Amino acid sequence: MAAAYFQNCHNAPASFELFIRNLPSHRGYLVAAGLEQALDYLEDLAFSDTQIEFLRRHPGFSKVGDEFFEYLRRLRFQGEVWAVEEGTPVFSLEPLLRVTAPVIEAQIVETYLLTTITFQTMIASKAARIVQSAAGRPVVEFGSRRAHGPLAGVLAARAAYLAGCSGTSNVEAHYRFGVPSSGTMAHSFVMSYHEELQSFRDFMGVFGNSSVLLLDTYDSLGALEKIISAGLRPAGVRLDSGNLAEISQQVRRRLDRSGLHATKIVASGDLDEYSIAKLLASGASIDLFGVGTALATSLDAPALSGVYKLVMFDHQPRVKLSEQEEKPTYPDCKQVFRFTEEGVHCHDIIGAADEVYPQAEPLLSCVMRNGRRVTPAPSLQELREKAALRIRRLPAAVRDLEHPATYPVEYSEKLKELFARIRRQATLQGNSDQVWF
Amino acid sequence: MAAAYFQNCHNAPASFELFIRNLPSHRGYLVAAGLEQALDYLEDLAFSDTQIEFLRRHPGFSKVGDEFFEYLRRLRFQGEVWAVEEGTPVFSLEPLLRVTAPVIEAQIVETYLLTTITFQTMIASKAARIVQSAAGRPVVEFGSRRAHGPLAGVLAARAAYLAGCSGTSNVEAHYRFGVPSSGTMAHSFVMSYHEELQSFRDFMGVFGNSSVLLLDTYDSLGALEKIISAGLRPAGVRLDSGNLAEISQQVRRRLDRSGLHATKIVASGDLDEYSIAKLLASGASIDLFGVGTALATSLDAPALSGVYKLVMFDHQPRVKLSEQEEKPTYPDCKQVFRFTEEGVHCHDIIGAADEVYPQAEPLLSCVMRNGRRVTPAPSLQELREKAALRIRRLPAAVRDLEHPATYPVEYSEKLKELFARIRRQATLQGNSDQVWF
Repeated sequence: MAAAYFQNCHNAPASFELFIRNLPSHRGYLVAAGLEQALDYLEDLAFSDTQIEFLRRHPGFSKVGDEFFEYLRRLRFQGEVWAVEEGTPVFSLEPLLRVTAPVIEAQIVETYLLTTITFQTMIASKAARIVQSAAGRPVVEFGSRRAHGPLAGVLAARAAYLAGCSGTSNVEAHYRFGVPSSGTMAHSFVMSYHEELQSFRDFMGVFGNSSVLLLDTYDSLGALEKIISAGLRPAGVRLDSGNLAEISQQVRRRLDRSGLHATKIVASGDLDEYSIAKLLASGASIDLFGVGTALATSLDAPALSGVYKLVMFDHQPRVKLSEQEEKPTYPDCKQVFRFTEEGVHCHDIIGAADEVYPQAEPLLSCVMRNGRRVTPAPSLQELREKAALRIRRLPAAVRDLEHPATYPVEYSEKLKELFARIRRQATLQGNSDQVWF
Repeated sequence: MAAAYFQNCHNAPASFELFIRNLPSHRGYLVAAGLEQALDYLEDLAFSDTQIEFLRRHPGFSKVGDEFFEYLRRLRFQGEVWAVEEGTPVFSLEPLLRVTAPVIEAQIVETYLLTTITFQTMIASKAARIVQSAAGRPVVEFGSRRAHGPLAGVLAARAAYLAGCSGTSNVEAHYRFGVPSSGTMAHSFVMSYHEELQSFRDFMGVFGNSSVLLLDTYDSLGALEKIISAGLRPAGVRLDSGNLAEISQQVRRRLDRSGLHATKIVASGDLDEYSIAKLLASGASIDLFGVGTALATSLDAPALSGVYKLVMFDHQPRVKLSEQEEKPTYPDCKQVFRFTEEGVHCHDIIGAADEVYPQAEPLLSCVMRNGRRVTPAPSLQELREKAALRIRRLPAAVRDLEHPATYPVEYSEKLKELFARIRRQATLQGNSDQVWF
């Protein structure tokens, strides 16, 4: 498409909006995430000589002239980006991001922006649910090994932390993004020793009283007896299998009887928001949850319907008008206006970018101009704290894990009228070309 | 764990095996993939000075001595790896990979190996199903924008090609791995023009008769009329929405009436193996399928139960013996022996690595010794051709998309006896420590 735009001198400014078409089932809201990685990409966008040489030889480009490859060599993203701050709850159809740039620049970044923002938004949204189910107990992200490749694990750890997890087992996410990382021991650590107790002693010899010891390699309560008899005082013990509700209560009683009140019980093993809620409802004595697969893959909803739609071209609003579209996307550059009453968000209006609602908070702000960030990247910790506040401001019914209420979102009168005008015009001209004003 | 192993001089050779615990529902087999990226990682493993400095300051390592960080600075993977060739059908419990190295080296690579091999295996397995459903028609991977981050899209394109897809829309996967890439136009391309026909003309002006034109931006049959009236002869037309069975037949008839017999019909839009099979059964006239989300995320089974288990330590077989384990993992280094009768695979035996079954093909071979590849990386094209042959050799019932038969896999008598001996011994000594011979 870039080559076709270029050779036809069809490179007017275009605006694209990125949004999620539908919420997955059980989701009352999403948590926007991934913006910083998207902006890094836009700032760094450039083709290397080797890449250009590869494209030049690509059979698909055999009829494309040299000027296009010269253009690619100089290409940098120089557009403008408006975006919702990471950690903000968002709903279907609400733009998370708007890119305005000459159409080649705006279009060539589509796939990267979609995969980056949609993936992290999906994970952050799942994480918020799991954190909620843990009712104040810390949740640590444990899912790297089941994530979709090595980078997905790192990004999932970031998104999970943003949305309220307290940390990750992924050290690379700590190194790159400052997500607090912590470790425990695996079954293989215990299994590499003749005696289970020796593995505990050796571990504590290095990590001291901050150690978390894994109980269920052979027999959880048996392992606990050894720890107590040996006088070890670990920071925590971890259960990774079995009836966690029952065993955790037994472990807690045994720890307390020995005065190990400070030793926390960590639970893991194919947990998600539903099993955590059930465990806590049944009186499980668990202080911290490690959640892996369900979190790092958003297992029950492993894809969001993220799209990137042309809404403006050459300063004219644009829209796709195919008959089958049940939920049409609206033309024009938009702003999301969030209304709050007594500290609780009550409804959003998706309006045109130039509308003003003095009572509402506009969610999109300009984050990039001429291809450069407008302000330095905010810290992940800061975003995380704001996210927690924002999520708490949603109506409780919208946060329900099983049957969330639908948060009211409406298009503004102005956008509705514009869309109706375009529809009428399109019907007049046979519905098969763009409508221009 | 590495620090604990190191400070306790507990670094004997260990063997870990990577396998998938259970097949997801509807899957009769998996297609092994991701080995080359795993071997690249092992060959390149090294900590940079900045990474070591980061670890040194990590609060978790506050009690760890300097010698460990000096050890990390010199750390390279120097172990041995046995693996199943990429593109080979495999079943649950069969090792895809075995790593033998001093335990620190073997353990520190666990997460990366799991995420790399499990993810690509999951995608290749899904791709094989989709390719099968298309009954000989090419399938192109279209899912990058819905993949779990930018790298997942590139790796998914590779795995999909390995398992039989004919190409990808991900140009980076072409650049890195030689997966044939091709492009079409998006709705936004058409929408950026006043007139739909002008967008087609401009595109064909650059890409000529190899162009694929997108029909459904406004009205598919209307767009086709314009193409025909203008005398355009595109290589293909694409349908991305609507009743694909019905519209594709109408489009085919209209194309044929105008002598455009060579113009192919490409279909896309939330397709998977089930919808493709249904489309073809209902007589859809589709020549090529573009499959996105379902393929790049393995949407119906977005995680495999991949594990990495210690099976040998210090030359002694090891196993985890917890009571709750329904499907125990077996100790000792293994080999998978595949038996074939009249060109069809009939059963596998998972035996000890040193067993010999002259009638069977041993699936694991040594691919890395002393941390270096034994032979150069095979070409992806070559692996893809072998994969197609191998998948065809599975019993048809095992390849059924809805209710696959279970392929017979058994442990060898030797492994069963070893495991029984360990169990007996463990019961004698109270089931709470490692059994040694």
